[in-house]
Amino acid sequence: MAEQLHDVAHIGHAELLTPKPEESLRFFEEVLGMEVEAREGQSVFLRGWGDYQRYSLKLTEAQRAGLGHMAMRAWSAEALDRRVQAVEASGRGEGWIDGDLGHGPAYRFTDPDGHPFELYYETEKYVPPEHLRPSLKNQPQRYVGRGAAVKRLDHVNLLALDVEANRRFAADVLGFRLYERIQLDDGSEAGAWMSLSIAAHELIYVRDALGQQGRLHHLAFWVDTREEVLRAADLFLESGIEIEAALSKHAVAQGFFLYGFEPGGNRVEVTHGGYLVYDPDPEPTVWTEAERAKGQAWGVKTVESFHTYGT
Amino acid sequence: MAEQLHDVAHIGHAELLTPKPEESLRFFEEVLGMEVEAREGQSVFLRGWGDYQRYSLKLTEAQRAGLGHMAMRAWSAEALDRRVQAVEASGRGEGWIDGDLGHGPAYRFTDPDGHPFELYYETEKYVPPEHLRPSLKNQPQRYVGRGAAVKRLDHVNLLALDVEANRRFAADVLGFRLYERIQLDDGSEAGAWMSLSIAAHELIYVRDALGQQGRLHHLAFWVDTREEVLRAADLFLESGIEIEAALSKHAVAQGFFLYGFEPGGNRVEVTHGGYLVYDPDPEPTVWTEAERAKGQAWGVKTVESFHTYGT
Amino acid sequence: MAEQLHDVAHIGHAELLTPKPEESLRFFEEVLGMEVEAREGQSVFLRGWGDYQRYSLKLTEAQRAGLGHMAMRAWSAEALDRRVQAVEASGRGEGWIDGDLGHGPAYRFTDPDGHPFELYYETEKYVPPEHLRPSLKNQPQRYVGRGAAVKRLDHVNLLALDVEANRRFAADVLGFRLYERIQLDDGSEAGAWMSLSIAAHELIYVRDALGQQGRLHHLAFWVDTREEVLRAADLFLESGIEIEAALSKHAVAQGFFLYGFEPGGNRVEVTHGGYLVYDPDPEPTVWTEAERAKGQAWGVKTVESFHTYGT
Amino acid sequence: MAEQLHDVAHIGHAELLTPKPEESLRFFEEVLGMEVEAREGQSVFLRGWGDYQRYSLKLTEAQRAGLGHMAMRAWSAEALDRRVQAVEASGRGEGWIDGDLGHGPAYRFTDPDGHPFELYYETEKYVPPEHLRPSLKNQPQRYVGRGAAVKRLDHVNLLALDVEANRRFAADVLGFRLYERIQLDDGSEAGAWMSLSIAAHELIYVRDALGQQGRLHHLAFWVDTREEVLRAADLFLESGIEIEAALSKHAVAQGFFLYGFEPGGNRVEVTHGGYLVYDPDPEPTVWTEAERAKGQAWGVKTVESFHTYGT
Repeated sequence: MAEQLHDVAHIGHAELLTPKPEESLRFFEEVLGMEVEAREGQSVFLRGWGDYQRYSLKLTEAQRAGLGHMAMRAWSAEALDRRVQAVEASGRGEGWIDGDLGHGPAYRFTDPDGHPFELYYETEKYVPPEHLRPSLKNQPQRYVGRGAAVKRLDHVNLLALDVEANRRFAADVLGFRLYERIQLDDGSEAGAWMSLSIAAHELIYVRDALGQQGRLHHLAFWVDTREEVLRAADLFLESGIEIEAALSKHAVAQGFFLYGFEPGGNRVEVTHGGYLVYDPDPEPTVWTEAERAKGQAWGVKTVESFHTYGT
Repeated sequence: MAEQLHDVAHIGHAELLTPKPEESLRFFEEVLGMEVEAREGQSVFLRGWGDYQRYSLKLTEAQRAGLGHMAMRAWSAEALDRRVQAVEASGRGEGWIDGDLGHGPAYRFTDPDGHPFELYYETEKYVPPEHLRPSLKNQPQRYVGRGAAVKRLDHVNLLALDVEANRRFAADVLGFRLYERIQLDDGSEAGAWMSLSIAAHELIYVRDALGQQGRLHHLAFWVDTREEVLRAADLFLESGIEIEAALSKHAVAQGFFLYGFEPGGNRVEVTHGGYLVYDPDPEPTVWTEAERAKGQAWGVKTVESFHTYGT
Repeated sequence: MAEQLHDVAHIGHAELLTPKPEESLRFFEEVLGMEVEAREGQSVFLRGWGDYQRYSLKLTEAQRAGLGHMAMRAWSAEALDRRVQAVEASGRGEGWIDGDLGHGPAYRFTDPDGHPFELYYETEKYVPPEHLRPSLKNQPQRYVGRGAAVKRLDHVNLLALDVEANRRFAADVLGFRLYERIQLDDGSEAGAWMSLSIAAHELIYVRDALGQQGRLHHLAFWVDTREEVLRAADLFLESGIEIEAALSKHAVAQGFFLYGFEPGGNRVEVTHGGYLVYDPDPEPTVWTEAERAKGQAWGVKTVESFHTYGT
Repeated sequence: MAEQLHDVAHIGHAELLTPKPEESLRFFEEVLGMEVEAREGQSVFLRGWGDYQRYSLKLTEAQRAGLGHMAMRAWSAEALDRRVQAVEASGRGEGWIDGDLGHGPAYRFTDPDGHPFELYYETEKYVPPEHLRPSLKNQPQRYVGRGAAVKRLDHVNLLALDVEANRRFAADVLGFRLYERIQLDDGSEAGAWMSLSIAAHELIYVRDALGQQGRLHHLAFWVDTREEVLRAADLFLESGIEIEAALSKHAVAQGFFLYGFEPGGNRVEVTHGGYLVYDPDPEPTVWTEAERAKGQAWGVKTVESFHTYGT
C-alpha cells in the first residue's frame, strides 16, 4: 500500500448559489449567526466565529440554487503543485485562476460528477475589526452568540451519479481518507464518508436518486455542543425556517443533526458530534442495505425528501 | 520552511504507575468507567469505549506514582523507520523491544527531560467480547455508561525542567505541531501545547516548578460532552475522589476540565472541548505572564497545587 | 370562582403490572438505573435517586401489562380527610386500606375511566443504607450514575374513553390544575395536561383510540438534563430496548422525550424540560386538531403506535 | 402544626436601582437578552421570554445601586386580603398604592431588615407584539436567542442583619416554606433558603457580613439548561462583564451558577438546576459552619467578595 497522502489540509470554503439572495443572506446572518466579512459583485462572503480564514461561505446570487464551487487548501505550496499535477494527470483539470477575495492563485477542476472544485494554498488569515475582537487570543473572532452562532463550515455533502468513481477520485487524487460507506445488495456504492483529517467526515458523496449530476445535498455548519443543535432547532422554528429533520444521531458517522432549508432552497445542516479517527489505517465501516433501512442511530426513520431532494 | 512531518499518528497509550494498584484499578474501572481488557504480571490494561486498539491505559503497580512510559503509533512501517532513525540521530535512543500486549516491536527512547517514550506501528485492533459488542458498527465497543464512561485517552501533560528543549525535540524529531505556548517575561518557555493532528493538544509540556525531572502532570481522558464532565464531577464527589479543580474552561487550548487525584496519587483529568486546528500553518498563540495571571477563561483562579504537584 | 384547592401534594408512586417480572426488573434496575428498595410477594419496590419517599415505582407480576394503581400524597391529615369526603361524595370511593410498604392508611377509589387511585398522607421518608449515602445532605440518596440514572417518577399518562369527564373529576375532586388541553373540531376533548404544582404536568389524560377503558399510556421518569435523555437513548439502543420515539420536544407541555417499551410491554418515557407555571390563574392552552396535526415542536411527526398503543 | 399557607403565589418582579442606567440597560437587553416592555419616568421595564406577566425586572435610575422593591403576587383577591391583614398585624405595613405599570393595587410593607416589599393580585398578562409572537402557543413570547436569553426572574437573595427574624416573617406572614438553612456554631442563623412553590428557592436571606441593613445580595435569572449558563459565561467574557464566580454547583440548593456584576454594580446570577420539593412536609436541611467551609458542591472555594459585597 502506498503511504498516506498529506497534501490537502481541509475544505476552505464553499460557494452557495441562491435565487433569493436577500432572504438567504438574512438566514445565514441572523438565523445561523454568521458575520458578513465582505461583499463583491453578486456575492457576500460569510464566516463563522471559529474560521481562521476570512470566510468559509461565499453566497452568490444565481438563477438556481446549488453549489457554486468548493475550495480546498493545500498544506504547502509544494503540496499544491503535487496535487495540481495529479489533477492534470486525471484529465479533469481546467486551469489556474488568479484567486478570489481572501486567497491566492487557485487551480480549478471538477470531480467526475462535474462539481466545480478548486485547490489553493496562499490565504489571508482573519483579522477581526475592533467590535469582533475576541477575549481569548487563541480564538479568531469574538463569540457574539447571535442566532445559532455556527463556528465554521464542517462538511460538504454532494450527490453523485457514480459514488464509487467520485470516491476513488477524491481518495487517489486529493488524498481523502474513506471512513465509512454504504454498499447496496447489488454491490454498487450508495454513499462514501471521507475526510482529510481525524474528523469523521469533511466530504460526503451520496448517490443521486434522481440520476442527475452536479447536485448538492447539503452544507453542514458546526456548533460546539449538542445543546446548541437543539437551540438551533428552536431558532429555526421561531424564524419560520422549514425544518426537514430535527435532532437525531446519524448511524453513519454518528453526527448529531438538524436539517432545514435556507430560503434559496439549499439544504443546510447544523451539526455536532461524530468521532475522531486517530487510527492511521482504519478499515472503513461498510453498511448494507438492510442496515440502512433501520433508520438513524436511535431508530428514527429518515424522511423521504432526504433521499431525493438536492440543488 | 521544511514541509510538515506526518510520520507519527497519535499517542497510543500511557503507562501509569501506582503504589495502590487495587484502589487505582477500582477508580479507573468504576469511577472513570473503563473496561479491563487484560492483566499481565503487575499490570492491568484498560480501555475507553472509543479506543480502536485494545487499550489506552496500562496501570502498573510500583513503589511510586508517575508515568511508566508513553507510546506513540506511527502512520506506517516506513514512517516508523524514519522516526527511529531521527531519534537515533538525536542521541536519545535506547533500542527496540519486542513489543507489549497488543502491539508489535517498539523503539524505546526518552525525551530530553527523561520521560520514557516508545514508538510502534503494528497493533491489534480491538475485537469486543459478546457482552461488549456495540449496536453501531462504526463504534469499537458497546457504550455501557458505567461511571464517567470515558471514551479514550485524550492527552498527556508532562512536567519538564526545560520546556523549550522538550518542545523542540517533540516537534523536530517526532513531528508534533506547536499550537500554543507560554512565554515568561524573561523570555523562557513555561508551557507548550502540541498535537500530531487537528486536535488542539495531544502532548503538553509545562515547566516543573520544583525543578525536578521526569514527572507527570496528568493524563486526560475524553468524554463527548461538557455535560459528561459535570456528571463526572458528581461521580467523583459521590465516590470520595479528591477533586482538585472542577469545571472551568482553560484559557490555553480552551478545554473544559475536571481534575482529580486517583487513589495512587496521579492527577487525572476528564475533558471535553477545545478546538480543531484545520490551518496547516498556524501561528502558535503565545501567552504572556500577565495574561496567564488572569486565571482560566472565565476568570477562575487556578489552584496552587496545579502549579506544583506532579508524580 | 372558588379558591384553588391545595389538598393533594403530588403523585407518590405508581404500580406497574408486568407479565415478565424478571426482564422488567432488569430494565428498571440496569437500564433506567433505579434502586431496589424492597421486595414483597410478587412486587419489587424501586426508587430514583431523588425520591424522598422509599419508592416511586411498585413493579408487580401480573397476567397482563398495565397500571396496578396510582397513589397520591395529601398535604396533611386534614387535607386527606377533606379529599376522601369529596371522593365519597362523587360516588367513586371504595374504602380505606391499611396502607402498603412505606406508607400509612390509604383510601382507594377509581377515576371515571376506572383507573385505580389511592390517597394517603402518612409516609416513611427514605433513609439510605451506608453504600447509598449521598455526599450532599440535601439529596436523599447517592447518585451512582448507573444506566439512565432517573431521578424520580415525573408524570403518569392515562388513556380514557371520556377525557373531559376524567379531567373534571381530577380537577374538582382532587385539585389538579389544567394547563393544556386538545379540543377536536367536534368540540370534544382529546387530551388534558394537569398538575398539582407549578410543574407543567403530573397527570395526563389522552383519549383512548381503541375505545377501551382503564388503560395506561405511559409512566415518565425524570432526568435533570436533556443530555441525559440523549444518553438514555444510547443506553436503550445498546441494551436492546425498543425505542418508539426518540428525542424531540413535545409541542404540548414542551417536554423533551425518549419513549421506549420495557420488556413487560409498558411504554416508559425518560423526560426533561417543560416549563413551570408560576401564574396562579393561567388560561389553559387549547390546541386544535389542525395544530396537533403539525406534529411535535420541531415538526417531527408522531409515530402511529403512540396514538393507539396502551396497556 | 398549622396547615400550610397557600396565599402568595410567587415573586412577580423586582426593582433594581442603578447609578448607570444606560450601561445597565445595555447589559440586561444585550447580554442577558431581556426585552424592553415599557419605559416610564426613570424606569425601564424588562422581561424574559418566559415571563407570563409584562415584566419581571424594573430597572430604575438612582444614586446608588440596590433593591428598589420586590413584589409578590397573591393566589387570589381573597388571599391578598388575608396576607395584607397578616402584614398589618405584624406592624410592618405601610399601606396601599394604586399599582404600577402592568399590575393593580399593591400593598407596601418592609421585611424586618427594611427591604421594601409589595403584595398584589391583579395583573396584566403579556400580549406579545407581532415580531415577538411565539411559534408555540404555550409560550408567552418568541425565543429570539439574543445574549444569554434568560427566561425569567428566578429568585431574590437579600442580605439581612438578623436572618432568623426575616425568615420567620417570610414564613409566618407570607407563607414561604423553609427548605435549607445555615446554622453557625453559636446557634445563630447565617442563611435561609425559602420558596412559595416546589422550586428549591425563590427568596433567600443571607447574613450581612458588614452588619448593614436593607442590602441586596443578588437577583438570579433562569435559563433552561446548564449549557446556557456556560454559554452565558462566554458572553459575559466577550462583553467585558466582570465575572465574580463562574460555573459550579452550590452545595446549598444545588443550583448551577454564574455570578457577575452588571455595570450599575448589582450582582446578577444566571442559574439553572436545583431540585423540586414535592414533599409537603420536608425537614429543612441544616448546614453547619464546618460543612459550609468545604465550599461548593464540587469543592470549589467561594470567592471572598461573595460573602461581603452587597448593594
